[in-house]
Amino acid sequence: MPVYSAPVRDTQYVLEHIVELGKYDNLPTFANASSDLVEAILTEGGRFAGEVLAPLNRIGDEEGCTRHADGSVTTPTGFKDAYKQFCEGGWTTLSAPEEYGGQGLPQVLASAVSEYVLSANQAFEMYHGLTAGAIASLLVKGTEEQKAMYVPKMVAGTWTGTMNLTEPQCGTDLGLIKTKADPNDDGSYAISGTKIFISSGEHDLAENIIHLVLAKIAGAPDNVKGISLFVVPKFLVNEDGSVGERNPVSCGSIEHKMGIHGNSTCVMNYDGAKGWLVGEPEKGLAAMFIMMNAARLGVGMQGLAIGEVAYQNAVMYAKDRKQGRALKPEDRDPQSKADNLFVHPDVRRMLMEGKAFNEAARALILWGSLQVDLSRKAQTEEERVAADDLISVLTPVIKGYLTDRGFETAVNAQQVFGGHGYIREWGMEQFVRDARIAQIYEGTNGVQAMDLVGRKLAKDGGRGVRAFFELVGRDIAEARAAGDPAGIAEPLEEAVKHLQGATMWLAQNGMTDPNNAGAGAYAYMQLMGLVSLGWMWLKMATVSGRLQSQASEDKDFHETKIITARYFAQRELVAASTLRKKVEAGAESVMALPVEAF
Amino acid sequence: MPVYSAPVRDTQYVLEHIVELGKYDNLPTFANASSDLVEAILTEGGRFAGEVLAPLNRIGDEEGCTRHADGSVTTPTGFKDAYKQFCEGGWTTLSAPEEYGGQGLPQVLASAVSEYVLSANQAFEMYHGLTAGAIASLLVKGTEEQKAMYVPKMVAGTWTGTMNLTEPQCGTDLGLIKTKADPNDDGSYAISGTKIFISSGEHDLAENIIHLVLAKIAGAPDNVKGISLFVVPKFLVNEDGSVGERNPVSCGSIEHKMGIHGNSTCVMNYDGAKGWLVGEPEKGLAAMFIMMNAARLGVGMQGLAIGEVAYQNAVMYAKDRKQGRALKPEDRDPQSKADNLFVHPDVRRMLMEGKAFNEAARALILWGSLQVDLSRKAQTEEERVAADDLISVLTPVIKGYLTDRGFETAVNAQQVFGGHGYIREWGMEQFVRDARIAQIYEGTNGVQAMDLVGRKLAKDGGRGVRAFFELVGRDIAEARAAGDPAGIAEPLEEAVKHLQGATMWLAQNGMTDPNNAGAGAYAYMQLMGLVSLGWMWLKMATVSGRLQSQASEDKDFHETKIITARYFAQRELVAASTLRKKVEAGAESVMALPVEAF
Repeated sequence: MPVYSAPVRDTQYVLEHIVELGKYDNLPTFANASSDLVEAILTEGGRFAGEVLAPLNRIGDEEGCTRHADGSVTTPTGFKDAYKQFCEGGWTTLSAPEEYGGQGLPQVLASAVSEYVLSANQAFEMYHGLTAGAIASLLVKGTEEQKAMYVPKMVAGTWTGTMNLTEPQCGTDLGLIKTKADPNDDGSYAISGTKIFISSGEHDLAENIIHLVLAKIAGAPDNVKGISLFVVPKFLVNEDGSVGERNPVSCGSIEHKMGIHGNSTCVMNYDGAKGWLVGEPEKGLAAMFIMMNAARLGVGMQGLAIGEVAYQNAVMYAKDRKQGRALKPEDRDPQSKADNLFVHPDVRRMLMEGKAFNEAARALILWGSLQVDLSRKAQTEEERVAADDLISVLTPVIKGYLTDRGFETAVNAQQVFGGHGYIREWGMEQFVRDARIAQIYEGTNGVQAMDLVGRKLAKDGGRGVRAFFELVGRDIAEARAAGDPAGIAEPLEEAVKHLQGATMWLAQNGMTDPNNAGAGAYAYMQLMGLVSLGWMWLKMATVSGRLQSQASEDKDFHETKIITARYFAQRELVAASTLRKKVEAGAESVMALPVEAF
Repeated sequence: MPVYSAPVRDTQYVLEHIVELGKYDNLPTFANASSDLVEAILTEGGRFAGEVLAPLNRIGDEEGCTRHADGSVTTPTGFKDAYKQFCEGGWTTLSAPEEYGGQGLPQVLASAVSEYVLSANQAFEMYHGLTAGAIASLLVKGTEEQKAMYVPKMVAGTWTGTMNLTEPQCGTDLGLIKTKADPNDDGSYAISGTKIFISSGEHDLAENIIHLVLAKIAGAPDNVKGISLFVVPKFLVNEDGSVGERNPVSCGSIEHKMGIHGNSTCVMNYDGAKGWLVGEPEKGLAAMFIMMNAARLGVGMQGLAIGEVAYQNAVMYAKDRKQGRALKPEDRDPQSKADNLFVHPDVRRMLMEGKAFNEAARALILWGSLQVDLSRKAQTEEERVAADDLISVLTPVIKGYLTDRGFETAVNAQQVFGGHGYIREWGMEQFVRDARIAQIYEGTNGVQAMDLVGRKLAKDGGRGVRAFFELVGRDIAEARAAGDPAGIAEPLEEAVKHLQGATMWLAQNGMTDPNNAGAGAYAYMQLMGLVSLGWMWLKMATVSGRLQSQASEDKDFHETKIITARYFAQRELVAASTLRKKVEAGAESVMALPVEAF
């Protein structure tokens, strides 16, 4: 059975030196996050994840969820009790506003904890994870009455939330939605239609489930401009806030999936269910995107989280398993007939890849979460806009690139186990199956690439991507001034040049033929992801170089950071030139064949 | 449910123009392969695979195999009947020698058919696939008596074969084997020990199962030099060839695996089972390697086979599914609210990647199978050695690179389905799970890389790799002379230069520190795989350019080949420089960390 130990030390390092939490003491929510409290939350969150949630991960995979004849759904053994503990421990409330019962802490701290929960049990996390997104949409777009009615219970975890977009005929292309909303006399709407792939759509963990549903009001344009957002509770809510009548929305079936079996992925049937408009009519997509942007960062975190836990288990196995001999006689263990897997350079390569990915991904995504915080809470409008610019550009990169790399990391970790990696009991193959979904949902990674290239690059005249280049350039200069202990400044600068070249190429050639942008989008996203991780390694190497030279108890920790940064510079950043060439190859050979030729 | 249609047209193209079957009419077995017969076999083999085997693929996945209390194993519904038809149709006999009841056809033809069988149902194919390898070992190393006793029944499929290497404590490192062979008075041995991961170890398809087992004879060196090979039948064979007494070898349990559920992967317990030495004592590894080399090419074929069937289904889905709008207004279907997925460049990219991989992989692996044939049947010793040199070098590349790329192709094909790809009913996730094993078994792909770099490059003073470079260089010159219609000669030449540079680097730096070879081995294997596929595209583009200019009915077919070759040149070969840099990065940053730092 896989093990999991939350990387609290590394999270602290990132929060202190990359996010630089201490700098923002003067801002709302950050003021609540004393370093003692942060440490306590990380430690206790890590413990809860490792001790309570991780042991349920294989059970969830093996049992899955069960739908009963009446449409009710039972979660796997142990999930209900664990969820109760999760709520009682306050883990649903970290970053929620205090006025709704939250702890009013920065988003970046909630993100840090969510990594642990996802590593331990991705399927479990999703019951709460989507609730957080639903809360965000309600807080921004809901009426005061709606907020008061739903949010406190959702913050407490007593009720959970869902997002309902996909229908059988449409996922990416929401303009094709058929679900209808007919006005009732009382100001509510009767919602009718079928939604599919609804994560946590029905289950036994919460007293009520609050569905946020995209639908078209009768008479609205039958395209993407005619979509409105509705809140549709499973049980109608009485005036006193208690749970009332059952709303005619039900789970028609549970999907049989490749992985995340512990989460109930439902077909939801709305049969004239009562719903209330959230925000303005026909502005539903914008409202849903509040939820979706948060969800995309959360999905990016899934890439890291599964990468981390899979890596940890591969390291354990490599330490334990003796097989073959070191290539150099002096590295051989004379006491044993075989050496542990660490002596084999190709096993090391896989483990270094995992380590180098995980630690940079953690830095990037927590830095990204900081931008979310700053976009709301920074002191000046200028600072808020600057943070929003950055996270707008990087959200598709974090979602798309980190989930691809997280999947690869899980595949490599499985590979370290040899044949045992393919056997269910070892649990490695579950990580691969679970990790796979993150590349698909919340907008496939291809959709993320198009979002990046088609929307985000050009947004506000390219302000976001320019700010990104500026930040990276500044840090390269700073690294050089600090002696660049990992030798990463030059390879990163080279990679940045390739990214800038590719950006320019897209700007010029995407205009003449938009298919050029489409054909190069994926490689461009990969290139920006690579540069982003390289940037984080540059930052970490600079910090660790400085700290290492001071008398420190953590000399080995910092030395490890510097070596890993060097590894990334030598083995990973070298991919930049190829990715640029793929971008600049253009659309011609991609689009040349007639459909019949396939 | 997934569909499958054997790519007979493309196989014929490869056999005619890349393998150039017609050139070898004068050789044994080739003389039997008239072009009419080849066409009939491909067509009928494709039909059988598509109509009989493919419909059982999901059933096999859902049901798996069942072990009963007495140790017997039942295969999934329909497998037994299909296997009967498979044997009756003569599909087990294609390349077996006529004197043992075979059809005496070239290996390359049997390989071509095995692609179809594997695409349709990988788990099913493995019952026969391993038998073919066991036959090969017996034919080369067995006594006349052993051959007469076992081979005809195995050729007919009445009996099947297995290979027993792995034990709980060892897979790659066979020196650690504990299974013992104690001499009996009658010249046989009593085999005792536990073998794991034994594909098709026990099942209900055949009347007898012939296990080839690695064990150590009492008193032999307790390392890799003390290993002998034994044949251990499930039922002892009477003098008249009939099945006699049950041998004490039994299936202790069936492994629960990520995929290939339809194949029974067994823990086999040998409790003093009667076995007979195959070949000389303590030369077991060499004897097993005959089987293993054949098996490695077969596993490479699995990469292609799953890539092909997954691609076919992604193409079907992309044609059918309408979602979103073409980026260019003129490409939009005015009759519909959405366009099919083919309009989206990033979907095309995934499909082109699949197409470009599958077709080149088919050419490479059939060309490789030809070398196997020529290494045995070419007229002169010089020709036989030359063929053997080439396939020795390319076997680890075909196994390692083609299974990695096949897995990626399956993952991309699943991605084309969006959320539906994650749902079991669509069958795409099964392809991903099934494809994953091919990267692991028969020597992990990391082991293949080490075989390539550590053994094959230097073998016979580098004769094999030099011959490879010579062939590729000659074909580049020929392509140029023919006008290079795909513009692939230059990018391939560039990639070859990188491969040559990396080869040189390894030769120089692997000597000073063998970890340099180990740390660069994987990237080197990828680079050689890339060049090999590029070489096949160059060959195909040259052929198709010539044929296209002649008045031909197949103009579109050849035009498609040329465009796909151009795609490969522009989008794939550009990775060569990065792979070389990874090789030349050396071992330092890979090996620098102490084990405790992970």
